[in-house]
Amino acid sequence: MDIQKFVKPNIRSLRAYHAEEIPCKVKLDANESPYSAISNQRSAISLEKNLQTLNRYPDPQATSLRKLMAKEFRVKPQNVLHGNGSDELIYYLITTFGGPVLYPVPTFSRYGIISQALDEKKIEIPLDKDFDIDIEKTMTSIKKYRPKLIFLSSPNNPTGNCFTSDKILKIIKTTSFSKQGRGDSRISSLVVVDEAYQSFSNEKSFMPLLDKYRNLIILNTLSKIGLAGLRLGFLIANEEIINEVNKVRLPFNVNSISQAVAIEALKNKKKLRSYITSIISERKRLFREMEKIDGITPYPSDANFILFRAADAVGVYKRLLEKGVLIRNMTRVIENCLRVTVGTPGENTVFLKTLKQVL
Amino acid sequence: MDIQKFVKPNIRSLRAYHAEEIPCKVKLDANESPYSAISNQRSAISLEKNLQTLNRYPDPQATSLRKLMAKEFRVKPQNVLHGNGSDELIYYLITTFGGPVLYPVPTFSRYGIISQALDEKKIEIPLDKDFDIDIEKTMTSIKKYRPKLIFLSSPNNPTGNCFTSDKILKIIKTTSFSKQGRGDSRISSLVVVDEAYQSFSNEKSFMPLLDKYRNLIILNTLSKIGLAGLRLGFLIANEEIINEVNKVRLPFNVNSISQAVAIEALKNKKKLRSYITSIISERKRLFREMEKIDGITPYPSDANFILFRAADAVGVYKRLLEKGVLIRNMTRVIENCLRVTVGTPGENTVFLKTLKQVL
Repeated sequence: MDIQKFVKPNIRSLRAYHAEEIPCKVKLDANESPYSAISNQRSAISLEKNLQTLNRYPDPQATSLRKLMAKEFRVKPQNVLHGNGSDELIYYLITTFGGPVLYPVPTFSRYGIISQALDEKKIEIPLDKDFDIDIEKTMTSIKKYRPKLIFLSSPNNPTGNCFTSDKILKIIKTTSFSKQGRGDSRISSLVVVDEAYQSFSNEKSFMPLLDKYRNLIILNTLSKIGLAGLRLGFLIANEEIINEVNKVRLPFNVNSISQAVAIEALKNKKKLRSYITSIISERKRLFREMEKIDGITPYPSDANFILFRAADAVGVYKRLLEKGVLIRNMTRVIENCLRVTVGTPGENTVFLKTLKQVL
Repeated sequence: MDIQKFVKPNIRSLRAYHAEEIPCKVKLDANESPYSAISNQRSAISLEKNLQTLNRYPDPQATSLRKLMAKEFRVKPQNVLHGNGSDELIYYLITTFGGPVLYPVPTFSRYGIISQALDEKKIEIPLDKDFDIDIEKTMTSIKKYRPKLIFLSSPNNPTGNCFTSDKILKIIKTTSFSKQGRGDSRISSLVVVDEAYQSFSNEKSFMPLLDKYRNLIILNTLSKIGLAGLRLGFLIANEEIINEVNKVRLPFNVNSISQAVAIEALKNKKKLRSYITSIISERKRLFREMEKIDGITPYPSDANFILFRAADAVGVYKRLLEKGVLIRNMTRVIENCLRVTVGTPGENTVFLKTLKQVL
């Protein structure tokens, strides 16, 4: 008996996440914040109490944390569901509602991987030449495949841009639930707007539209604003959606210490905000400087990273790494493209200088 | 459009985990250790470094932690997979291999809940009158339904006993993979022995049999030995099984702080061992004392809790709670039965005294 034949057929072609630790001096590959969002001294103190009670199970409802996030998002706690990273919430959404799952490509790879792990049909719609939603193809596919879930990462990873708001809105409206049974109820879909990078964007969050559209779901995460190591994601939606997704959630999915550290970090909003401001300002500088460099084309970004094209992208990636600067090789996803995360001013300067050297 | 009709049909009858916080003075309801496994002062210091780097993603392979656990379990690191609690690993097992999923009942409720969440067929075989595996019915069902996965919690929750080793072994042998294709290859199953409570047992772990039986999987957790709040579970199996399950694992499922705190706690094996010894000794005392009490029948336990029968079990549960002692009402699962977790010597004495009062 071969174990590889014993697994479900949909699992056979999946590959495990490849995570090689690549030694480097400047790490700009993973869209992490260059700043940890937690003040060490204060937290060490408040953590002691949490360590003392680690023998007890965590609060399964993450009551205090959800209350804090609800306030932040201007919704009610019952509109917030906590995840061990937003990728766990993507797992739960697909488990609860099933497929087909529709999303534009290229985008965050986990939508596709998790759909396949859960054996749900994937419908991938290529972005247009401006990395925006191809609304005609999308509408045609929605009508043809009637997806249960539509994932829209805006700002989108790895392209960095926000999708046109009107296009997102059109998708939401077309697939919106109608209490009165008006419209074509057969094309109801849940539209998940993944706002992982929203804090760095000029565009508005879709959060205020939750009241109006019952089929809208927002995903958010603390990973990009200085707490990637903590694994905390949030699903914000109408209570009836939360109640259903909550049925498949592992009761203790967010551990006690993560709950405590997140609360501590979120209390210091001024600090969080200042880090975000610094990253946005550095992204602007980085973009301006990259535009001046011959041989590369940076794409405008609303996120904490910049995608850029280079003739010999793989060569540029390798030569940067030889000099200790690690960025992300995106050539398998978008021809000749690399992605650089916005770091500290110092890191960005090193990146720019090294990039010029290796070109 | 009704959201409840929009979910997958298998989700409709699921209910969310109900977690009401019940105020009490003595908490003996959740099979937690009464002792936190982490020494506060030391950890506060080493945590500082981890807080400083919380902006970075966790080590997706949990390299150091898996190395430590491998040493503890006397296997290789490639035989260990880390989970955000062992319940996450149950999710991954059923996602990877699918159903039917077979297990005796009553047992840990999550085997059934997760099978249903993932829309896999459940086959539940009632335990015999001694709470042991009904081997005849089990063998018949294995032949009839050819389960992909068999879950055996030993010691079993909530009954507290270990299943007869020979019965477990017979199930493993009957369903074992045969490289040579001998035997009835159609009844291959993966047998998951859940050893969550093994540290408290006199019976031997099934770990040494991993070399002999490729279809054997062991689950373990830090939840019962003082780190329930941390959410750390482990799957120990042959590398070919680990490689398949790893395909559906979220890359960053165990966060940086959990990895660091677990390493810290596990380094102090002497302390962990002394807590376990104390709990075993208290379990023996609790059992002896409960045997002397008229009106209740305690069942022998190899775990950190004792199941007992009482004529008016719900009444006893309520009256204990009125006096501040919280135990678990199991009457919906086993007629007239309650479950008490072994606490500190002081907590156990309060429980015994209060129990006598309310009977």
